[in-house]
Amino acid sequence: MTLAAEMEDPRTSFARVTPELIAKLEAIVGAEHVKTSREDLEPLGKDETEDLHCWPEVGVFPRTTDEVARLLRLAHDANVPIVARAAGTGLSGGAIPVRGGIVLALKRMDSILEIDEQNLVAVVEPGVITERLQETVEAKGLFYPPDPASRGSCHLGGNVAENAGGPRCVKYGVTKDYVLGLEAVLPTGEVIRTGGKLRKDVTGYDMTRLLVGSEGTLAIVTKITLELIPYPKERRTLMAPFSSLRGAAQAVAKVFHAGIVPCACEILSRDALAAAEARLGNAFPPEVSGADACLLLEVDGNDSESVERDFLLLGEACLAAGADDVLVAQSPERARELWRVRRTVGEAVKRLSRYRELDISVPRASIPDALEAVDAVLGPLGLRHVSYGHAGDGNLHVNVLKESTSDDEWNRKLPVASRAVIEKIVALGGTISGEHGIGCVQKDLVPLQLGPVELRLMREIKRAFDPRGILNPGKLWPEA
Amino acid sequence: MTLAAEMEDPRTSFARVTPELIAKLEAIVGAEHVKTSREDLEPLGKDETEDLHCWPEVGVFPRTTDEVARLLRLAHDANVPIVARAAGTGLSGGAIPVRGGIVLALKRMDSILEIDEQNLVAVVEPGVITERLQETVEAKGLFYPPDPASRGSCHLGGNVAENAGGPRCVKYGVTKDYVLGLEAVLPTGEVIRTGGKLRKDVTGYDMTRLLVGSEGTLAIVTKITLELIPYPKERRTLMAPFSSLRGAAQAVAKVFHAGIVPCACEILSRDALAAAEARLGNAFPPEVSGADACLLLEVDGNDSESVERDFLLLGEACLAAGADDVLVAQSPERARELWRVRRTVGEAVKRLSRYRELDISVPRASIPDALEAVDAVLGPLGLRHVSYGHAGDGNLHVNVLKESTSDDEWNRKLPVASRAVIEKIVALGGTISGEHGIGCVQKDLVPLQLGPVELRLMREIKRAFDPRGILNPGKLWPEA
Repeated sequence: MTLAAEMEDPRTSFARVTPELIAKLEAIVGAEHVKTSREDLEPLGKDETEDLHCWPEVGVFPRTTDEVARLLRLAHDANVPIVARAAGTGLSGGAIPVRGGIVLALKRMDSILEIDEQNLVAVVEPGVITERLQETVEAKGLFYPPDPASRGSCHLGGNVAENAGGPRCVKYGVTKDYVLGLEAVLPTGEVIRTGGKLRKDVTGYDMTRLLVGSEGTLAIVTKITLELIPYPKERRTLMAPFSSLRGAAQAVAKVFHAGIVPCACEILSRDALAAAEARLGNAFPPEVSGADACLLLEVDGNDSESVERDFLLLGEACLAAGADDVLVAQSPERARELWRVRRTVGEAVKRLSRYRELDISVPRASIPDALEAVDAVLGPLGLRHVSYGHAGDGNLHVNVLKESTSDDEWNRKLPVASRAVIEKIVALGGTISGEHGIGCVQKDLVPLQLGPVELRLMREIKRAFDPRGILNPGKLWPEA
Repeated sequence: MTLAAEMEDPRTSFARVTPELIAKLEAIVGAEHVKTSREDLEPLGKDETEDLHCWPEVGVFPRTTDEVARLLRLAHDANVPIVARAAGTGLSGGAIPVRGGIVLALKRMDSILEIDEQNLVAVVEPGVITERLQETVEAKGLFYPPDPASRGSCHLGGNVAENAGGPRCVKYGVTKDYVLGLEAVLPTGEVIRTGGKLRKDVTGYDMTRLLVGSEGTLAIVTKITLELIPYPKERRTLMAPFSSLRGAAQAVAKVFHAGIVPCACEILSRDALAAAEARLGNAFPPEVSGADACLLLEVDGNDSESVERDFLLLGEACLAAGADDVLVAQSPERARELWRVRRTVGEAVKRLSRYRELDISVPRASIPDALEAVDAVLGPLGLRHVSYGHAGDGNLHVNVLKESTSDDEWNRKLPVASRAVIEKIVALGGTISGEHGIGCVQKDLVPLQLGPVELRLMREIKRAFDPRGILNPGKLWPEA
């Protein structure tokens, strides 16, 4: 995708960033927080999605809500695109400035404003690293559960924009389930406040949850009120190898049907395990290394006996569902090793080949059919995939590998493959994205899932917030 | 509120229901499902809000989504108001046809379409009684937690429209947290589908959660996909008397701070206890009867030892927080008796006097200040209140009593009192309504909480769904 091609799109007519505009940006945030050099702009043009880079025209680093408001108003009046950026760890190109313009980088807005232990609530700025909040509240016996793979580097503002998930969400819910209130700025520079430190609030439409997951297309979030819960003190972890991927996938619904809600239920294919093994440079125990798939399962709670009881039931449920074995983590160190296998896969895939990650989500019991559908599409095209993910949520990361496919073939096959997979996933009652977002990478697939009426409503909501369409243009759906 | 006054509002210009329109309605659903007699229309003009009745012009009882779609299209083309109605148990006038027109009663759409035990999901029509779904899934070991006081008679469609709560929501979340997907009809007759049997879905804006709690102003919900969870087998209940209401209110945050998440944390003032005692016709134990306030607390789970352990911690936390005593329910029968006290209060208040119920919600730790604010407003006006509710959620039902106040005085004082209370609640970071909705009763208070920009956005969202404003007009906010 080239900026030139996008900028020349006849359906939009944004203005370019001028020296006069840059001077005004500098007047708002100070010249040292406005970047225009090629080397400063290069990292602002990408996220962690493969094969994606677009050049912004200028990068601005505000510190306060007031600065954000003035910057937005300026962009609005000048009709220049503006794209909010958190840590840039996204996997769907959500923060990529596909139409150029201004990148509004929020990393300087990184204060944990309040940990309210009376109300079990945290108030943070968007640039706070997720893990930093988690460690801060855990020191007080509290818990902020959402745990995207990038939690050591991603920002809470990005988590809110994309409605980030992670392994624990199967028990605890996704980012949206923890956002109680927001402060956000409209393109007009108007500041809105939604929700608050409130467990219950039915006054007006739910603007909080409309903004979460809206991928920076409606408003720029400048303050986030998050619910906290007591930290579960006890946890037990196991890995269950299966002699087929389909068998492992089929076991997932059976585990839940046994009445246990694990705090993680992850699936790893043979290829995912091998990739992790190669990346970590050590051989896994033969039960894992030789398996065709594994489930990684965890239970947690406050009471060690009750966690132990759930853990035994979980192990029994795995065996009853066809697991070849149950490898129990006998110590926290061993549990961390099992998790290292899981957490390595994402990075390990990158070492294998160029790839494209699909982030499909289906009803939990349809995971076996989803994997079959993926094979049915990719097999005839001669493309391999490494698949793994949050099986308990029905959310699978399907990494389609380029390997020795020529560039031409890849560019021809990939859109065909993506489209065919999503058609089958939608037919299973599934969705294009479970947690990565649509961004610019998947937007052309959206009409396979959402009908014209649903899309019209979303476009009109977009227009209510952002009449000129300057906020993160070129995302979420194809141009009308 | 008179229909005549509302109908003559110069800011709207709806058409009236004509004999020709009635013939068309009859052609869609059959003449036996179209009601026009005074006695048939009377019950369609009220809900369970005190002092509220408006006459619809016609009542229509469709059976299918297709009929709903055709009815809506007809109303849209004729520019006639249309108000969806579930069981009519609402407490904010949400289903009252304040501009006349058509009441669309959904009670015939009462099928439980599917209990999907593989995916732990139920699919229902809007006219299913909440308790009926709960009993159906409990027989399968599953749980649908939201439990509004009216659950024996209210409909799930109404629960969705108002985002209903209830005592258990403090642990399990409100209706919104269980709605995974919706089928709904726009005023144009277009049918939209949102979400699905999906735990995770970030494709496009969250239309599901935008519709939940929108009080029938955006679309008419015709099918609901609900998440189910395993039924918690064990529960323990206690009642803790306090020698002051403030003391009981202060104890709430302390209980949560002890790291326990109760599945109910209800507060009852002295007057609420006395009202329940009078209504039930039996004296409570002296510890309760003589207390100035009580907390009703419950813990649940799957494991009896762990529930017992939490229960002991809970009792200790109550005593440490200043409870005079802890009355433990030694049997399920005794627990039911304690709950009967709590569940009777709503009905009992109605016997005391005419009243107006406020449904304030504040940050949990601000409940003592909220009660103080209520006293500070009502005391000087010479108005008493009976207050009780979901203290763990910060959600209090403040029933302002008319008693011997003359009608003129009541009509003068009530708006002043409501306004002054809400101003103080908003200053505490609270909201006008925690679970009852805004409806027509509280709409004039909304600008005390939501600013003009937030209101403008909501109105524009409304316009995107319902360009002619025929869906449940006169609700949610004052006319612009």
